Amino acid sequence: MHKPEEDGKPSETLRAIFEPESVAIIGASDDSGRIGGRPLRYLLEAGFAGGIYPVNPNRDQVQGIPAYPDIRAVPVQVDLAIIALPADQVLSVLPSCAEKGVKAAIIFSAGFGETDAAGAALQAEMLALARRLGLRVLGPNCLGAFNAHTGFMGTFTQALKHGFLAPGSVAIASQSGACGGHLAYLCRQRGIGVGYWITTGNEADIGLPECMHWLAQHPTVRVIVAYAEAIRDGDGFVKALKLARSRGKAVVVLKVGRSAAGARAAASHTGALAGEDAVYDAVFRQYGVYRAGSVEELLDIAYACSHGVFPPDRSLGIVTVSGGVGVQMADAAAEYGLETPLLPADAQASIKAMIPFAGVTNPIDVTAQAANDKSLLGRCLEVVMGEGSFGAVVLFVTSAPADPDFAQRLLAVLGEIRKRHPGRLIVLSFVAPQTVVREFEAAGFLVFEDSNRAVRAIGALAAFARSFQRAASGPFDAPAPAERTYALTRGDIDGLNEQGAKALLAAAGIPVLDEILSASAEAAGEAAERIGCPVALKIVSPDITHKTEVGGVVLDIPTPELAVAAARDMLARVRGHLPAARVDGVLVSPMRRGGTETLCGVFRDPVFGPVLMFGLGGVHVEVLKDVAMRLVPLDRDEARSMVRELRGKAIFDGVRGAPPADVEALIDVLVRLSAFADSQRNVVGEVDINPLLLMPQGQGAIALDALVLPVSE
Amino acid sequence: MHKPEEDGKPSETLRAIFEPESVAIIGASDDSGRIGGRPLRYLLEAGFAGGIYPVNPNRDQVQGIPAYPDIRAVPVQVDLAIIALPADQVLSVLPSCAEKGVKAAIIFSAGFGETDAAGAALQAEMLALARRLGLRVLGPNCLGAFNAHTGFMGTFTQALKHGFLAPGSVAIASQSGACGGHLAYLCRQRGIGVGYWITTGNEADIGLPECMHWLAQHPTVRVIVAYAEAIRDGDGFVKALKLARSRGKAVVVLKVGRSAAGARAAASHTGALAGEDAVYDAVFRQYGVYRAGSVEELLDIAYACSHGVFPPDRSLGIVTVSGGVGVQMADAAAEYGLETPLLPADAQASIKAMIPFAGVTNPIDVTAQAANDKSLLGRCLEVVMGEGSFGAVVLFVTSAPADPDFAQRLLAVLGEIRKRHPGRLIVLSFVAPQTVVREFEAAGFLVFEDSNRAVRAIGALAAFARSFQRAASGPFDAPAPAERTYALTRGDIDGLNEQGAKALLAAAGIPVLDEILSASAEAAGEAAERIGCPVALKIVSPDITHKTEVGGVVLDIPTPELAVAAARDMLARVRGHLPAARVDGVLVSPMRRGGTETLCGVFRDPVFGPVLMFGLGGVHVEVLKDVAMRLVPLDRDEARSMVRELRGKAIFDGVRGAPPADVEALIDVLVRLSAFADSQRNVVGEVDINPLLLMPQGQGAIALDALVLPVSE
Repeated sequence: MHKPEEDGKPSETLRAIFEPESVAIIGASDDSGRIGGRPLRYLLEAGFAGGIYPVNPNRDQVQGIPAYPDIRAVPVQVDLAIIALPADQVLSVLPSCAEKGVKAAIIFSAGFGETDAAGAALQAEMLALARRLGLRVLGPNCLGAFNAHTGFMGTFTQALKHGFLAPGSVAIASQSGACGGHLAYLCRQRGIGVGYWITTGNEADIGLPECMHWLAQHPTVRVIVAYAEAIRDGDGFVKALKLARSRGKAVVVLKVGRSAAGARAAASHTGALAGEDAVYDAVFRQYGVYRAGSVEELLDIAYACSHGVFPPDRSLGIVTVSGGVGVQMADAAAEYGLETPLLPADAQASIKAMIPFAGVTNPIDVTAQAANDKSLLGRCLEVVMGEGSFGAVVLFVTSAPADPDFAQRLLAVLGEIRKRHPGRLIVLSFVAPQTVVREFEAAGFLVFEDSNRAVRAIGALAAFARSFQRAASGPFDAPAPAERTYALTRGDIDGLNEQGAKALLAAAGIPVLDEILSASAEAAGEAAERIGCPVALKIVSPDITHKTEVGGVVLDIPTPELAVAAARDMLARVRGHLPAARVDGVLVSPMRRGGTETLCGVFRDPVFGPVLMFGLGGVHVEVLKDVAMRLVPLDRDEARSMVRELRGKAIFDGVRGAPPADVEALIDVLVRLSAFADSQRNVVGEVDINPLLLMPQGQGAIALDALVLPVSE
Repeated sequence: MHKPEEDGKPSETLRAIFEPESVAIIGASDDSGRIGGRPLRYLLEAGFAGGIYPVNPNRDQVQGIPAYPDIRAVPVQVDLAIIALPADQVLSVLPSCAEKGVKAAIIFSAGFGETDAAGAALQAEMLALARRLGLRVLGPNCLGAFNAHTGFMGTFTQALKHGFLAPGSVAIASQSGACGGHLAYLCRQRGIGVGYWITTGNEADIGLPECMHWLAQHPTVRVIVAYAEAIRDGDGFVKALKLARSRGKAVVVLKVGRSAAGARAAASHTGALAGEDAVYDAVFRQYGVYRAGSVEELLDIAYACSHGVFPPDRSLGIVTVSGGVGVQMADAAAEYGLETPLLPADAQASIKAMIPFAGVTNPIDVTAQAANDKSLLGRCLEVVMGEGSFGAVVLFVTSAPADPDFAQRLLAVLGEIRKRHPGRLIVLSFVAPQTVVREFEAAGFLVFEDSNRAVRAIGALAAFARSFQRAASGPFDAPAPAERTYALTRGDIDGLNEQGAKALLAAAGIPVLDEILSASAEAAGEAAERIGCPVALKIVSPDITHKTEVGGVVLDIPTPELAVAAARDMLARVRGHLPAARVDGVLVSPMRRGGTETLCGVFRDPVFGPVLMFGLGGVHVEVLKDVAMRLVPLDRDEARSMVRELRGKAIFDGVRGAPPADVEALIDVLVRLSAFADSQRNVVGEVDINPLLLMPQGQGAIALDALVLPVSE
């Protein structure tokens, strides 16, 4: 698979696709309704200033401009070829494109990998040919791309039939053509400016990550909206997300296939191997991506980000002419991670002086009185803006601006406030005709009809702000600890027993118990004597992963004599259950009391590679699936956010009189395990520390059991 | 507080408010923009056919019709008085209203309980006067009511300034005037027909429950939309919900104050005592109410219900011209409680025969090919409707119907399908102008722009259908068990120790252990001998609720001798901690092994009365708040739904090789406890069974510890 070019050097391929100086349309049609005709019509209508060269062996002119029998006949250099031919003719024109020196080809044609085995074979053949010719390819089975800044319309999407989009700071990258078109249509309808739009279709060559990476580098792009069904290049995706974040660009993703039914549908739709959906969630969380649950939410957040104002903190001031809607917005604020601190007492008094029965804490309910007196509303809002020191302020005024007089007077009042408080986030919620909404937007306000959606968007903006701040304070990826210097081979790990696994983890800096492997029941007794009772006994075998199920664990043995007996019984039991298992002996461990059982581990996601997992132990993990995940490596902050993410996190504060847990020691373990998994990613396939016993503050965390497996061959 | 009239007999008061034959407006203004002028203008404009009598001592005519100096001067019978006077003049006109024989008064006036102590006192005085006069009152501080069927517009809401609402099957009852107005405006804008609309303001007399109860009885009402901040009359509310459900009417509620910040704001806004929000959730769940999280969601669901088609089951067929949106809808279906079973193999083959590369499982992705060929789309949809046997079908066609030709042809195709499948739920999702949407609605289809919101609405309809079916199969409230015949007094419960509490619960049919209360350490030893070791010892004292904290519990005592010693130590320990505590002795119990620790109990909600609570025991309840609640009494089905509601419910299926738990025995306990709490609701304030040990299937559930407290005096 081709990889995007290095950071800092924008991809020439994507430049050719988004910003070609000249484009040839192979299979150009005179019928502007057909797939080969539509892009030509769009290019002409949009006033694309670059060269447009229809290629059609049967006509001298297509849609009124000169046509060429073959791309090689075009008299000038061609940056980009659009191929609108039946699938079985695509391969025959690729050599001519290469000969002409085009930098990339957009292949609209369906009938490849999305269909059946024959189509997949044809796609593989096409890709091999393109690679051999040094030709980069978008598609096949895609709707192409457009650039609203230059009028380059390399697409046949129906979404442009009713008009082009105003250029703006939003860029859209979609794996699905139909969804991409739908998003474009909705953006146009809602007045969201879109600079760049691209659909990747079957992704034979160019995938979503490469597109996103290019967009993240582009100075006019402020928001990247991505529609994804399955990411194939996990590393490239993470690289694009990191780049976007480091440049303060918001990434909003609609990743479908969240449910089992959805994943089934996604698989049948794209034929791609989908990674575990929970891992996508982890990646999005880790790199500050907003994951939308619907097209509407996707565009709400994109719209909010497109204005480029991010609040400095999560505090929200709510000003409302309806107390009830104020309460709703306060509820929504809590739901979307915002805080609603009280208005300072002085400010409360100022508002009370103006409106005796106003609600003045927060929400600030200025009542219908302020709705009828715009100057009063303005003065209240000024108090909130000036003295409230909220990160963002939202103002709800029902459908009052549907009245043109009201709208104009409100606009005047708000314009003054905007002038006095430039750069602050003020969001309006009201219901009025689009023309009115546009006027308020032009004056620097975000407008949402629904007050809850307004608050949700503010929550998203605040989350982006935190993510950008964190990126600025970097570094994200933990430096390798000293233990990293060793290099393991697969052979070091294959067939490792519990003791070996613990030794490996101990070398990586993870605390384990002092234990003694005993080859016989008698030796176990001696070990118990040395360690001091009570002790625990565990069977040690590379062939047994679930020890309890074969009677391979006995806890709380009070005397060395009983340890001998217990070890003898255990060895007999295990031999009875699994006569063929290799048994290395019995591990004698000191019993640890108290503490909270947690578990952590590493597994390998097919798309994203090693993933660190942490959760509460016992039945919690199995019954409640209360776990947090991150890609490795990670730093302490990220590890801390994993701990905070658990629904059961309150257990670490100490419940029922228990002391608080040693969370810092836990974070140590997570960071070290992540560094270990990262540095040994080519050989370590899976790590399971279960339980990881978390002791009270100051007493550490300790791996009571461990398993390390090599990568699958 | 007045109560709504008995079931089956519609309230005369509400009839007078919603369907007056004659109305007097006291404080009627000639200025149609003022509060006293607006209702008159609306009544005249809406063509209200009943009598309209402005009352104004200073004018002979108001807005062109004859005015009267006093309501008593009106020459005919008056059903309803609207009072639009300053607060301090309201009391002076109430006697004249009573004298005239009006059935109810709507008081618009602000300046009562919503303001300050003086306002609250004025409101109390007004209410006392009204009661004495036998006058029912809506408000004060409310926006009144309207009836779109008759043109009765007893309101000054600005929402009607731009036009009246079309009458329809939706009724709106709102505690907040501003929210009520906002809802009315949005319904008009969205073309949702609203028959009745009422706002209750300060609820000095008439509250939301009484309004909902009346609406539930009205034959033209199909959906009740309620906006609530705090319900005062919990019993009346439940009664209204039960009535609505028994008549197959959907209730959709936006109850604000969900978060702490929201509750703070709600309290400051209404001054009402809000019940615990989680109890509202329980009530909504129990009586099949849809709780919306936003105004938008509220209206989405109301709109869906207003068509009156509820799917027979939860299965959803998804037909889409965009595979990606199909996957989104499948995800949404899973989120909103719907199932997406596969299309039968024959039907799959039929569609494949028409569109070779269609996705045919479910979602059924008919691809852009069908979007371009309406007859093909119609044939595919016919296969899905005819052979799919889905409870509901959703069809997504992007923004294609924005093209008028496409819209007309699609309408023709769908019209045929509608004819062949009358009464089936078909929901469309597309983006097009309102006029186009209205045409499809008129043809019998629900239309949603956003595909996820379409699926959410279908999920709500399916949930209503289940709720209605269950109501039809009744009874809901469990019959009293035999144990119910006894009648306790407060004195029977006050100061009850653990043993007493268990005896009470045993009498109510809840299994408890055979235990022996021992007055001395020696007696405890004898009891241990009789019961058989190992045993557990627990201190018994009416003054000690948290036994473990004072060392009052010792488990797993292996011999009677050790039981004597343990009892002696325990008594000494407890005396040391709590010298003043009355100690009844030491309870000796058999040790129970295995099983799952759960807990259940009853507490008293200030609004709704006794609430049954059930959850997983141990740290689960404290850390994860994983509990389910219901009002008592409840039947086995409802108890089963409580168990299913727990996030950790999988533990009952048996994890890590454990056998499944005896859920039927658990349900027994819940139903019996609920019947106990119901029958003794005047004396029992709180019950706490913790732990309730749930044994493997066939082995029952048993209360290991119990506490019963009387109601507070």
